[in-house]
Amino acid sequence: MPIETVSENKSHGGTQGVYRHRSRETGTDMTFSVFVPEHDAGARLPVLWYLSGLTCTHANVTEKGEYRAACAEQGIVFIAPDTSPRGDEVPDDEGYDFGKGAGFYVDATQEPWSKHYRMRSYIESELPDIVGAHFPVDMARQGITGHSMGGHGALTIGLRNPERFRSVSAFSPIVSPLACPWGEKALGGYIGQDRAAWREYDAVALIEDGAKVPDLLVDQGTCDGFLEEQLKTHLLREACERAGQSATIRMQEGYDHSYYFISTFMAGHVAWHAKALKV
Amino acid sequence: MPIETVSENKSHGGTQGVYRHRSRETGTDMTFSVFVPEHDAGARLPVLWYLSGLTCTHANVTEKGEYRAACAEQGIVFIAPDTSPRGDEVPDDEGYDFGKGAGFYVDATQEPWSKHYRMRSYIESELPDIVGAHFPVDMARQGITGHSMGGHGALTIGLRNPERFRSVSAFSPIVSPLACPWGEKALGGYIGQDRAAWREYDAVALIEDGAKVPDLLVDQGTCDGFLEEQLKTHLLREACERAGQSATIRMQEGYDHSYYFISTFMAGHVAWHAKALKV
Repeated sequence: MPIETVSENKSHGGTQGVYRHRSRETGTDMTFSVFVPEHDAGARLPVLWYLSGLTCTHANVTEKGEYRAACAEQGIVFIAPDTSPRGDEVPDDEGYDFGKGAGFYVDATQEPWSKHYRMRSYIESELPDIVGAHFPVDMARQGITGHSMGGHGALTIGLRNPERFRSVSAFSPIVSPLACPWGEKALGGYIGQDRAAWREYDAVALIEDGAKVPDLLVDQGTCDGFLEEQLKTHLLREACERAGQSATIRMQEGYDHSYYFISTFMAGHVAWHAKALKV
Repeated sequence: MPIETVSENKSHGGTQGVYRHRSRETGTDMTFSVFVPEHDAGARLPVLWYLSGLTCTHANVTEKGEYRAACAEQGIVFIAPDTSPRGDEVPDDEGYDFGKGAGFYVDATQEPWSKHYRMRSYIESELPDIVGAHFPVDMARQGITGHSMGGHGALTIGLRNPERFRSVSAFSPIVSPLACPWGEKALGGYIGQDRAAWREYDAVALIEDGAKVPDLLVDQGTCDGFLEEQLKTHLLREACERAGQSATIRMQEGYDHSYYFISTFMAGHVAWHAKALKV
């Protein structure tokens, strides 16, 4: 599993790196970023995964996320993968909400998507092995978060893998692909029209079907233009209440869907994960 | 002096705005960003100016600078102007280091640059009036900083206007355009070949010629690829020592010229300015 170093910059006492590797799951080159705080020789640090939203690559949060000061303070490694396979050989869609930049963290079953669009297995299986092999991490202590489509990814991957993730949070997540146009387009395209098969990719459905994690933290801006039609935070709140799933879901007055919002609450999320990861 | 709102986003409790106006000095539309922290009604906050480097617009530091948390904590308004006039009517150069994106904070005297390239007067005179008229600021409490070409701008504008700026700092500044290729190309082009006329645009020369401010703070990465040929931090240190100018000039081990460096030390600079601005 060789990886290639695209760039490394010293920042906040640690190293912000960008790396590339040939992915067995997607059949393409994949790029991801890793921030490793300053640490004692031989130390192995807990890991926080951040899954990005529609149209994003690893670069958006790496440049705008304002996580490095908090991760340096807490001693946490921060991993930002890409959101889809890339390359000329990868099929795409005209919309910004399907195809490249919009992998939705699923393993596609439908043609022509199933060959390359395997972001679930990439995040759940392949990339953790690579991270574990190449960075000073303690893979027994992992947390996961993400934004929008990546919030959906963090919630669903976290809920499906409670043995792997000690802590799960999200910024303005898509909470139910079954109940919004983004989700219907993406899952219909990647997985097909059998909606029962979507439930493992739907945080609300997973909670309804019995998935459970120790706690959830979600921040959502009240001035987010996607809130009403796509994100529907209330569905998550209601599902958690019905299922007895502990959750802190905060509606943040006046905030929108941008990195100006995410960066405001990033340090708080890092600290929240640190409480679970550093015990 | 009307200004147009390009965007406003809530961030870190305050408002990150981007604004556009027709400039009397440059004869073009100019764009700048302003972060206004949350504040009591009627309050007027101190101001920190940030001048950007070669190829940048207001957007680079606005997205990558990580200043908002610190400015929100300190109650300081942060202003990021553009680095040159823009538009089809503005003459340009093929290089990244002259023309658009490279105004060097001078008033050009040479054709064809003198009509639009008036960034000195824009920063020293026009934009402060606009900021004072449109934002909740106390213009009796201003500080200035900047990066690279903008560090040169901050140092020279700060040294020439000690009555206006209570505090002056810089990140990896060009300290002497008289003594580096970037400076020779820019000042030769904008001001002409009479090098005596460059001295008011050269921090080292200004200090040699008697300019004085209460203190200076400079951070410079030791792994900055421009250090040896262009930035030459030691010339500033030597000039300050000879002139008895108080200065803290820190060589930061392992850091480069990027925003990964700037963002690391931004909160420290904001806190340093706050000490002078909040008394």
